[in-house]
Amino acid sequence: MSDVKMIGPNVPNMPWQERGAETKGFMPVWRYSGNPIIGRNPLEGVARIFNSAVIPYEDGFIGVFRGEGTDGVPHIYLGRSQNGTDWTFEKEKIQFVDEAGNPFMPIYAYDPRLVKVEEVYYMMWCQDCYGASIGMARTTDFKTFTRIENPFLPFNRNAVLFPRKIDGKFMMLSRPSDSGHTPFGDIYLSESPDMVYWGKHRHVMGKNGDHWWENVKIGGGAAPIETTEGWLLFYHGVTGTCNGLVYSIGGAILDRDQPSIVKYRCANFLLTPQEWYEERGFVPNVTFPCATIHDAKTGRIAIYYGAADSYVGLAFTTVHEVVAYIKDHSRVSESDREIGLR
Amino acid sequence: MSDVKMIGPNVPNMPWQERGAETKGFMPVWRYSGNPIIGRNPLEGVARIFNSAVIPYEDGFIGVFRGEGTDGVPHIYLGRSQNGTDWTFEKEKIQFVDEAGNPFMPIYAYDPRLVKVEEVYYMMWCQDCYGASIGMARTTDFKTFTRIENPFLPFNRNAVLFPRKIDGKFMMLSRPSDSGHTPFGDIYLSESPDMVYWGKHRHVMGKNGDHWWENVKIGGGAAPIETTEGWLLFYHGVTGTCNGLVYSIGGAILDRDQPSIVKYRCANFLLTPQEWYEERGFVPNVTFPCATIHDAKTGRIAIYYGAADSYVGLAFTTVHEVVAYIKDHSRVSESDREIGLR
Repeated sequence: MSDVKMIGPNVPNMPWQERGAETKGFMPVWRYSGNPIIGRNPLEGVARIFNSAVIPYEDGFIGVFRGEGTDGVPHIYLGRSQNGTDWTFEKEKIQFVDEAGNPFMPIYAYDPRLVKVEEVYYMMWCQDCYGASIGMARTTDFKTFTRIENPFLPFNRNAVLFPRKIDGKFMMLSRPSDSGHTPFGDIYLSESPDMVYWGKHRHVMGKNGDHWWENVKIGGGAAPIETTEGWLLFYHGVTGTCNGLVYSIGGAILDRDQPSIVKYRCANFLLTPQEWYEERGFVPNVTFPCATIHDAKTGRIAIYYGAADSYVGLAFTTVHEVVAYIKDHSRVSESDREIGLR
Repeated sequence: MSDVKMIGPNVPNMPWQERGAETKGFMPVWRYSGNPIIGRNPLEGVARIFNSAVIPYEDGFIGVFRGEGTDGVPHIYLGRSQNGTDWTFEKEKIQFVDEAGNPFMPIYAYDPRLVKVEEVYYMMWCQDCYGASIGMARTTDFKTFTRIENPFLPFNRNAVLFPRKIDGKFMMLSRPSDSGHTPFGDIYLSESPDMVYWGKHRHVMGKNGDHWWENVKIGGGAAPIETTEGWLLFYHGVTGTCNGLVYSIGGAILDRDQPSIVKYRCANFLLTPQEWYEERGFVPNVTFPCATIHDAKTGRIAIYYGAADSYVGLAFTTVHEVVAYIKDHSRVSESDREIGLR
């Protein structure tokens, strides 16, 4: 255990389940016994919901969900929940508008994240700009979703904003890539004074040949959680096998003031596909974290992750357990520690 | 012929040679009879100079040259010339400093461009940021080269700045890519208020399956030349064969106020490898434009291009001939015409 403290709002109604007897005590993260929380054919015309992001809102929770249509094309759907485990979805995919209020829909949209900064909710996702790119929108009421400038040139995926500005700047992680099933990928940090122009790009951490579970590529997952030890980041790490890629959940702790510096990085995955809903599906062997709900008072963390590109799973830990585990198993490389422009 | 006018300074001492009898009159660009202007082993420890950029300076010309060391690693060398064809090089590669004045060298640096905006000379090149990325530096005296922020996340190559701000913003073309011998690539435009933060990324034009000589990838070449018809852009277009890629020189004219809009795009290449120094070398079959010297009064244009990753070649045209040729053979696709955020 660690005496780390989580910094942020209290969310006493967050979903929670204590570690069960069937969960090995030496693993720092345990699954919800009711998994998957979202099953197949959740909506008319939507075959699968997965890789989705949720956040506390009003007296419950709200989320943006990757819904893969029966035409095979992904779009983003709004969902609401009172308890964080039972979700109801709007029938129509989210309709975006441009800054003048005119309809402005991406051709496709997938793997959304949802982060609140200073009373505005920002959504970021992957979409087409003649290749895989980051799209962004803002909302304050979850009724009007206004697209704002794409932050980066293609090709990029897995953008996730920090939940507060640092030194007056918005900060965002992303994973530059190519336009296909990218066989490489590191996590970078960029900053913006205004959500229009981005710069001061820094390498945060890379795929790691010494950690076989993340030796192909990595990418930001849930929005970083502020703690007294630094920013707790749940991310995905990918390895390759003769029968395809395997996506596990990893953990790292980034410096609070200069988050391109990795303070601790867990050499072990925190969670890896082993349940039927993680091993079987449209893309077998994927656990892909996109959001957490967490409560500063108790230190509890609920991790929402896509499973096998077919389901949404939920897993739990506490900031004390997971930070202790990451620190105990930390192995930080020279490039993870590097500061500044290269 | 076209009644287009070039906008910019007069450079009466620019290198020039009239079209020779051996040059087919129906080709809009002709080669200098003294090509290649830079041959093998130009400097001790440097095997080849190619893909380099030059600019008028004081009473002659100055340039930044990709010198491939005998260790196989590229760096940038400074060269000077009185006539634009005979060049002398500094023995030591350019030593960069950071904004505090401390040494700050890229691990490698290649394919530099050199553009003057408001009395400052900006150099941009390709370098490593855990993958191919754009590096930038500024100088006013060609003695101190100060590295500034990398404008974009990796992976990217072929960045080239416009020679003036548009609507108060720096404008730059680039070619997002992967980190290898990228098998795709379009030209994008980005803008910056301050050379630190970049945004409002727009697609300019893509590889074109209908133009077989540029059906794999394209990339910005020389800094755009302002004309009354728009920004005249010489770029490279690439096709693939069973024995490798072939790099030709293409031409397009971009809207003066919104240069992400392609007004004209030449369906034919303007120049393609056919001479021994273009077909033979470290990378056979490459003509790769990186700079022009041009004279507004006469409309003359000298194109500097890398040849076979081994030599520097020089070719000539006039703004009247080449703009007429581009317009006469223009074929602009829907994506080339697209305006705004996608």
